[in-house]
Amino acid sequence: MQKLSVREARLESAIGQQARLQGWVRTRRDSKGGFSFIEINDGTCLANIQVIADAALPNYEDEVRHLTAGCSVTIDGEVKASGGKGQATELHAAAVTVHGLADPESYPLQKKRHSMEKLREWAHLRPRTNTFGAVMRVRNQVCRSVHDFFQEDGFLYLNTPIITASDCEGAGEMFRVTTLDPADPPRNDQGAVDYTQDFFDRPSFLTVSGQLEGEVYATALGKVYTFGPTFRAENSNTSRHLAEFWMVEPEVAFNDLEDNMDLAERFLKRVVTDVLENCEEDLDFFEQRIDKEVRERLGKIVAGGFARTTYTDAIAALESSGEAFEFPVSWGVDLQAEHERYLAEKLHGRPVIVHDYPATIKPFYMRVNDDGRTVRAMDVLAPGVGEIIGGSQREERLDVLESRMSEQGLNPDDYWWYLDLRRYGTVPHAGFGLGLERMVQFVTGMANIRDVIPFPRTPGNAEF
Amino acid sequence: MQKLSVREARLESAIGQQARLQGWVRTRRDSKGGFSFIEINDGTCLANIQVIADAALPNYEDEVRHLTAGCSVTIDGEVKASGGKGQATELHAAAVTVHGLADPESYPLQKKRHSMEKLREWAHLRPRTNTFGAVMRVRNQVCRSVHDFFQEDGFLYLNTPIITASDCEGAGEMFRVTTLDPADPPRNDQGAVDYTQDFFDRPSFLTVSGQLEGEVYATALGKVYTFGPTFRAENSNTSRHLAEFWMVEPEVAFNDLEDNMDLAERFLKRVVTDVLENCEEDLDFFEQRIDKEVRERLGKIVAGGFARTTYTDAIAALESSGEAFEFPVSWGVDLQAEHERYLAEKLHGRPVIVHDYPATIKPFYMRVNDDGRTVRAMDVLAPGVGEIIGGSQREERLDVLESRMSEQGLNPDDYWWYLDLRRYGTVPHAGFGLGLERMVQFVTGMANIRDVIPFPRTPGNAEF
Repeated sequence: MQKLSVREARLESAIGQQARLQGWVRTRRDSKGGFSFIEINDGTCLANIQVIADAALPNYEDEVRHLTAGCSVTIDGEVKASGGKGQATELHAAAVTVHGLADPESYPLQKKRHSMEKLREWAHLRPRTNTFGAVMRVRNQVCRSVHDFFQEDGFLYLNTPIITASDCEGAGEMFRVTTLDPADPPRNDQGAVDYTQDFFDRPSFLTVSGQLEGEVYATALGKVYTFGPTFRAENSNTSRHLAEFWMVEPEVAFNDLEDNMDLAERFLKRVVTDVLENCEEDLDFFEQRIDKEVRERLGKIVAGGFARTTYTDAIAALESSGEAFEFPVSWGVDLQAEHERYLAEKLHGRPVIVHDYPATIKPFYMRVNDDGRTVRAMDVLAPGVGEIIGGSQREERLDVLESRMSEQGLNPDDYWWYLDLRRYGTVPHAGFGLGLERMVQFVTGMANIRDVIPFPRTPGNAEF
Repeated sequence: MQKLSVREARLESAIGQQARLQGWVRTRRDSKGGFSFIEINDGTCLANIQVIADAALPNYEDEVRHLTAGCSVTIDGEVKASGGKGQATELHAAAVTVHGLADPESYPLQKKRHSMEKLREWAHLRPRTNTFGAVMRVRNQVCRSVHDFFQEDGFLYLNTPIITASDCEGAGEMFRVTTLDPADPPRNDQGAVDYTQDFFDRPSFLTVSGQLEGEVYATALGKVYTFGPTFRAENSNTSRHLAEFWMVEPEVAFNDLEDNMDLAERFLKRVVTDVLENCEEDLDFFEQRIDKEVRERLGKIVAGGFARTTYTDAIAALESSGEAFEFPVSWGVDLQAEHERYLAEKLHGRPVIVHDYPATIKPFYMRVNDDGRTVRAMDVLAPGVGEIIGGSQREERLDVLESRMSEQGLNPDDYWWYLDLRRYGTVPHAGFGLGLERMVQFVTGMANIRDVIPFPRTPGNAEF
């Protein structure tokens, strides 16, 4: 008997096939005519398939009529055309095998709707709901597009280290990684914790970014991208922050900021195009149940070119906008969410790339412009969400990089290997970072970032 | 001017094109005829392109004649047919721009060969060598094939958590993740470290496997695979162990052990086939410089079906082999490397899957057979390397799983969510794990696992 997924069995082309379907019961309804309708889902698509189980089945009274939400079944039967609404096919069961029951007295996922907060407590069961199945399929599509885009363009996938002894990248608070006994760590002569006895012989942490190591490989092999977990030990309980999240970071030798903006724009368009083309059913769901503007927002990404403006021009536009901003605007300040939204939503009505920011508000590794006071930074701001990509052309001049480090109070000795990239065969290069979960929020409309990652890690939460 | 990569410019089809090439100098040789030969590499392939730079170039004396290994250049010119050995094309330079020099007095990567140990100290420069460029391209191909294989087969890519509060999976020693001050951690009334004040309000660790969480998603959405970093805090200084490595773990609902073996075999064949087809030049290099048997070994993976044998039969074969093993063999012992190699290399002469191992030497989650003393485990043993994949059908029966936990001294309460998967709609399911770096060792012949990951983490090593 050929196995078919629910997605396959729902296609008209499956009509007439003898098939085996395996999945979980969503609902059962008994007809007075002596048969039952059972809705089965197997995760391959949002929709269920309707199974017609006749009373003549040998286990009809004992098992079929006791099926409830969450029970697992194998059904052998024939795919037939269906007269039902919203379905081309249905499965007429010749045999129903029940693998596992789900006691309706205790199984949490009953028909009533549960809050997202409640579902987070059941992170091991929530993928069985429509919402989280859809999130997972869209997340998978985004990940697949990320790899396809870069691979087709000749980028090499790079795994930068997760554990690092560099605690000095300045991107945020870090988690310590250790095998020392916290109750009684070894001490040195001065009474301080003796990290030379820790696993890596030194203080070690979870990475906040793979960029610096990405530059190592870009300046050897040309085009690389990372796609891995990164960490922030910040006590942020917001709908936009996770302690553990996945990041995509391309880095390209010989690219300048213009190339970098072009790459970011092509990349975003590709991911969104793939989601629009391949996740139609799930997008319908998000549009109806989660965020009615999701398709409109995605349409703006693929419709035309992104606007581009210097930070200096953006500040001027904000100053003359006549808007009453909560945070006042002037040259030198960082843009707040309200400013980003004004630029993307009101002023341009489409994604906008702001570039060439004041050096004082950006990290040491960004390339200094000839004016001496701006650097080749860029942020991609999307309507509805604000910043979605941040990147820059990197400083490739050894002397400028060293003085920027000193300005920011960093010790160049800690970066000897990073400086070597400028010492030996230095090249212009550029890259950017995209937070996967923020991208999934963007394409699904899910309000809380904890609901677009399988097992969210936030202050106080590391179960499962 | 159109940018071409070295790989593109080496194609015959590029002849006649005006092109811009960007990369790093490998060698320069000056001819008496008044021009120089410069070999350029950009990481897109193992081979260099030869550039002919004429003395008529305005910066010939000042710059071109000073180029040394590691210098970075942009070259505009015309691709012409080459009479040189091993190259169809060469580039005749119309302009040479030098971006960065690499002082031959201090640049470590001079023409002489360096030991692998030495190159590990220069992990930021080693990707500029032939060996590590080739490793990186092959590693990229393996990663790409992993994603392609599963995506084309309808699997969903799953990111299981890196930080976990489960310290009880029994797969190995774990790293602690903490934001407490190790010099002076908060204490509770009993004087013990008060982990309720740690970032996650409890002791937290780096994951050793995503399997249990993979089962959560497989038993909701059918077919999933993880591909992410995993960790072992073991003090193993061997050529086969890393503290941080990448693992691929598929998990499939409704699969039994037979299905699992079929999947593992198809998967390995696909990855190896892709490497053989797409990495020909790099494989030539590995065959000539690193391991002359590498192609033969890969041929055995794709040539025919894998052998399959029960553990019980394998033990019988080992006992009657007449071989003088260092570790004696009898039913109930775990197989040692020497046994695995005998089975794969001598007895079967091809990959062999050993299955149905004694319950006593396998973890609690593997499905118990009707004999009560074996479990549905499987290991794929490859000629030349031994175990490359380990997996099992999982125990889906709640009562059996609980008693296996008790047998192994585990507290079922710690696994409430894992047990819920059996409590509600349980299904047969199976999966396996493949260590990425061991796979890259297998397809390249690289002797030390530290040389197939960009920045290896081992006891005492976490720089870069």
